[in-house]
Amino acid sequence: MEDLSRYIRSIPDFPKPGVRFYDITSLLENPTGFKLALSRMEQYVVNSGAEKILAIESRGFIFGAALADRLNLPLAIVRKPGKLPGKCIMQEYELEYGTDRIEIHEDAVAEGQKVVIVDDLIATGGTLAAACKLVEKLGGEVVGISAVVALSFLPFEEKLEDYDYNYLVTFDSE
Amino acid sequence: MEDLSRYIRSIPDFPKPGVRFYDITSLLENPTGFKLALSRMEQYVVNSGAEKILAIESRGFIFGAALADRLNLPLAIVRKPGKLPGKCIMQEYELEYGTDRIEIHEDAVAEGQKVVIVDDLIATGGTLAAACKLVEKLGGEVVGISAVVALSFLPFEEKLEDYDYNYLVTFDSE
Repeated sequence: MEDLSRYIRSIPDFPKPGVRFYDITSLLENPTGFKLALSRMEQYVVNSGAEKILAIESRGFIFGAALADRLNLPLAIVRKPGKLPGKCIMQEYELEYGTDRIEIHEDAVAEGQKVVIVDDLIATGGTLAAACKLVEKLGGEVVGISAVVALSFLPFEEKLEDYDYNYLVTFDSE
Repeated sequence: MEDLSRYIRSIPDFPKPGVRFYDITSLLENPTGFKLALSRMEQYVVNSGAEKILAIESRGFIFGAALADRLNLPLAIVRKPGKLPGKCIMQEYELEYGTDRIEIHEDAVAEGQKVVIVDDLIATGGTLAAACKLVEKLGGEVVGISAVVALSFLPFEEKLEDYDYNYLVTFDSE
């Protein structure tokens, strides 16, 4: 199976010194790479039995939207606070220092609906775990998490241990 | 031709009292509506002769990514300041009060490359005009602008008069 890592460039010292950023813009630039990533995510989403895709702001929108189009599935979105215009519920989650929040429209997931969550990157898993909680608060079922990249040197397994997740590429050093 | 406006809900008093917000999340929720919008945008992009799609953060990512997948075109992104990890150029633009900025990677558009810019909404046209300037600063050619919604009570024609643009639905009152 072709290794997708060659489509993802890494940029040192971003967003701060000592951190290496894995940049998917080089994947998007290459239609072969982008479509290969989407095809692998598509297979996972089909196998998950998902009835809806939930994409996380903002790079998750890129993969989630193309998958919704390919699979003819409804697309919902999770955003930073104050961005969604309808009535929302909110989930707080911990960062290295302090906390952050994400929101979802309260009508975005139906009772019992099977949802797959899509983002570009699994880092600490904090945002993804918060998105799972939002789905569950609305009565939905998280049947999977699909991402392009996972940073294996970060402890996301613990935060996501209750869920099935899948990624296409892993990077193992900072 | 089916009227897409029925897929787009409007929410009063968002983001502030007296403003009506046209919300595309109800379009995304409906695969028939989402795919109909994408098919019309796809036709416009094909006719434009674009060699690349440039999507504007963050709802523009939703439409731009699905179009890039459908058309087998490279996808580049414009983001708010400080989000893109590589070397960027920046464009400032005016808001009702104050200014805002957007950025693009300096290697995101090649000299002479034909680019179509994709966003969900044309309001004042300020962000789109700034994105056009970024493309031109990098030596590219803006061959079109594709959006889902245009707010016809706002004066975007003036800001975008040098460009070809297309939208699928227009709303004519606040």
